[in-house]
Amino acid sequence: MSQLKILLDESDIPTQWYNIVADMPNPPAPPLGPDGKPIGPEALTAIFPMPIIEQEVSAERWIDIPEAVRDIYRMWRPSPLFRARALERALGTPAKIYYKYEGVSPAGSHKPNTAVAQAYYNQQVGIKRLTTETGAGQWGSALALAGQMFGIEVRVYMVKVSYEQKPFRRSMMQTWGAEVLASPTNLTNAGRKILAEDAASAGSLGIAISEAVEEAASRDDTNYSLGSVLNHVLLHQTVIGQEAKKQLEKVGDYPDMVFAPCGGGSNFGGIAFPFFADKAAGKQVRLVAVEPSSCPTLTRGQYAYDFGDTAGLTPLMKMYTLGHDFIPPGIHAGGLRYHGDSVLVSQLYNEGLIEAVAVPQIVTFEAGVIFARSEGIIPAPESNHAIRACIDEALRCKQSGEAKTLLFNLSGHGHFDMASYDRYFSGELEDYDYPEEAIARSMQNIPKIAGA
Amino acid sequence: MSQLKILLDESDIPTQWYNIVADMPNPPAPPLGPDGKPIGPEALTAIFPMPIIEQEVSAERWIDIPEAVRDIYRMWRPSPLFRARALERALGTPAKIYYKYEGVSPAGSHKPNTAVAQAYYNQQVGIKRLTTETGAGQWGSALALAGQMFGIEVRVYMVKVSYEQKPFRRSMMQTWGAEVLASPTNLTNAGRKILAEDAASAGSLGIAISEAVEEAASRDDTNYSLGSVLNHVLLHQTVIGQEAKKQLEKVGDYPDMVFAPCGGGSNFGGIAFPFFADKAAGKQVRLVAVEPSSCPTLTRGQYAYDFGDTAGLTPLMKMYTLGHDFIPPGIHAGGLRYHGDSVLVSQLYNEGLIEAVAVPQIVTFEAGVIFARSEGIIPAPESNHAIRACIDEALRCKQSGEAKTLLFNLSGHGHFDMASYDRYFSGELEDYDYPEEAIARSMQNIPKIAGA
Repeated sequence: MSQLKILLDESDIPTQWYNIVADMPNPPAPPLGPDGKPIGPEALTAIFPMPIIEQEVSAERWIDIPEAVRDIYRMWRPSPLFRARALERALGTPAKIYYKYEGVSPAGSHKPNTAVAQAYYNQQVGIKRLTTETGAGQWGSALALAGQMFGIEVRVYMVKVSYEQKPFRRSMMQTWGAEVLASPTNLTNAGRKILAEDAASAGSLGIAISEAVEEAASRDDTNYSLGSVLNHVLLHQTVIGQEAKKQLEKVGDYPDMVFAPCGGGSNFGGIAFPFFADKAAGKQVRLVAVEPSSCPTLTRGQYAYDFGDTAGLTPLMKMYTLGHDFIPPGIHAGGLRYHGDSVLVSQLYNEGLIEAVAVPQIVTFEAGVIFARSEGIIPAPESNHAIRACIDEALRCKQSGEAKTLLFNLSGHGHFDMASYDRYFSGELEDYDYPEEAIARSMQNIPKIAGA
Repeated sequence: MSQLKILLDESDIPTQWYNIVADMPNPPAPPLGPDGKPIGPEALTAIFPMPIIEQEVSAERWIDIPEAVRDIYRMWRPSPLFRARALERALGTPAKIYYKYEGVSPAGSHKPNTAVAQAYYNQQVGIKRLTTETGAGQWGSALALAGQMFGIEVRVYMVKVSYEQKPFRRSMMQTWGAEVLASPTNLTNAGRKILAEDAASAGSLGIAISEAVEEAASRDDTNYSLGSVLNHVLLHQTVIGQEAKKQLEKVGDYPDMVFAPCGGGSNFGGIAFPFFADKAAGKQVRLVAVEPSSCPTLTRGQYAYDFGDTAGLTPLMKMYTLGHDFIPPGIHAGGLRYHGDSVLVSQLYNEGLIEAVAVPQIVTFEAGVIFARSEGIIPAPESNHAIRACIDEALRCKQSGEAKTLLFNLSGHGHFDMASYDRYFSGELEDYDYPEEAIARSMQNIPKIAGA
């Protein structure tokens, strides 16, 4: 019997994070202040600890992972790499399909990879509280877990639509000692402003970020922690791709294509960036970011400087954006409901170094069920996006007879998303059209930056 | 950094199941017919395939695991053994605590270890449908998964209280293609009888078993599959203890005590029986079954011949029983709500070869939260029983200064039990007194078997 799970020892957990900036043809576009002028690191000290800020602006290829962080990683890392033989049989494809399974973390997704690092650095500088936002709840539960491990209080602003769709993600955060609020709230100016406009607002990641940032900026003992988008977050997630490369080496294989869901970009960056290092060195590998067609940032957005949050509290970042006040439809992949995208991912896409595809909601659940019935694991709705794109490629291989090697990031399990699967089975799941008018409206509000 | 996870290779998955009957001082008490006379294997052919019946009555020490079953086991086996260093620190105990984590299976518990074997043997004899019961839903989801893997239709009678407490366990079973009904139903005589007496019946494992057995006995293409209690089920679960022994050997350790939750007995038998083999050979090791004080089968039950189900459709089995029509309080550890116990576990307990302890509900959740906040993993309510007993022993070690080595079976995660954790946190969780009167009543109905 050939091996299904390709495992590594704890000693194989990466000792350094990979910083893609060192291999990018051009330096990342700098963040700008409201005045359109580049801001310095000091502008971030109100909400981030200095070690994180240094990582945010670093151009070093390799950054050491603190032993205290690796020590926590050992709870679930190295995560397994699976050869999806049953899925290959179910599809009748000549393609070889591998998936890296990050759902083995206690929080059930890849998010703890950066949550643990961020909690550690904040603890190091004496921070007692962290605020953050969460969509599907995967990030919030990851930070709740990490805060618990380092004795830091955590307050989570959870996007209301997810708070209602996924009550047990909230319970999970509370089990790890975190406080969870449905965003928008009445506790912040940003939240009150939204509620004044729409008391029934379903919320969005952009709004929740505004609330968490506003609170962190207003308290000395409190910092803010972001689950995606920023350079240091993608940096921390590169343990995924580094392990995957080592695991594929063990079986003498290498992917032709790598797929990952893409919301803010850390899921994609985590698995894809270490392969980009090879691509930069001349190796052939296609890196595909998969986003929801109802929030098609890379495929339909505008490449421009925009705010990372709805209220415009963050610095301006050069990214593909649908407009910082765009509120995506309430799809069940809450983690992909973000108006923008990582500066690094956006620039790589703009320079044609990576690819992107947008998929509608229902077929992603169809893919998730095909996967669950062959491989056993029930995937998170976010992960279903990567599975959909990977299955589509495997079916193309079936047509063409090509035996491509495909890898995707199974970023999390769907144990807290069964209500979404219920809606899929009952035929109540919605497919949203591309929200043409809403996006046209929100794009009007992308700030005009001279010369940017 | 010393190792946290002790892993094995796929090649280390046991190739044989361990049959404890070969090492028991006395042969297991035989099942009896309603007439009080021992029944032969043929009496079981209406609901079980012959290979399963042969395992049920076998006295062979080792029974080969079919390659097709090991092939499916590789999806999650070998499961990890963890050294609970963070829990040890949190307790300040000199004891060494290890736990075997079965929650890594797609169904999230140890149950697929036998579900896969049972589905395989039924497929081998041409069975197209399986019926079963489920309490917490862990068994039902395991059989749904296994049925999906072998192309067998599965109908699950789910105890109504759990059906209502754990709707997403139902969704999970449906994701794997199974049909799920809230028991008692109107589809069987057994169900109709209960509903006639109490239309609002919360159900029980005993009732659900009656319904599933009744249906299976009435259809040629349909067999019945049981998730615990029977010899062959405990046999299949011995992969857990076999792996745990090998993993402890890797770190040069051996347990002084082994703890496992005990409902029907397969959770306990799975981890404890392979250690009993050493005990039978003279090794010192204490094996402790942990049950709920609201359904204290071993610690307060009567050792007598009784039916395995409420309606009295099964053969009579010699076991500790609270009476086959006892309906336990609606505790959240649905998998432990069973009036009886495995014949093998009961006989070992009666002969003083294993120990048992009963614990009330609230302190089991307290233990689960202590565990979740140190080790990260959120345990199933059933598992919390073993954690409670293990923590209590670790705290005794703290008093005595003994550095005992403790092992428990973390039989599943609590991702589908967060509503129960919510009740614990909100102070709404009930502690049931020992149901003195109800048990006195149901014990009246234990059949009087001459000479047994």
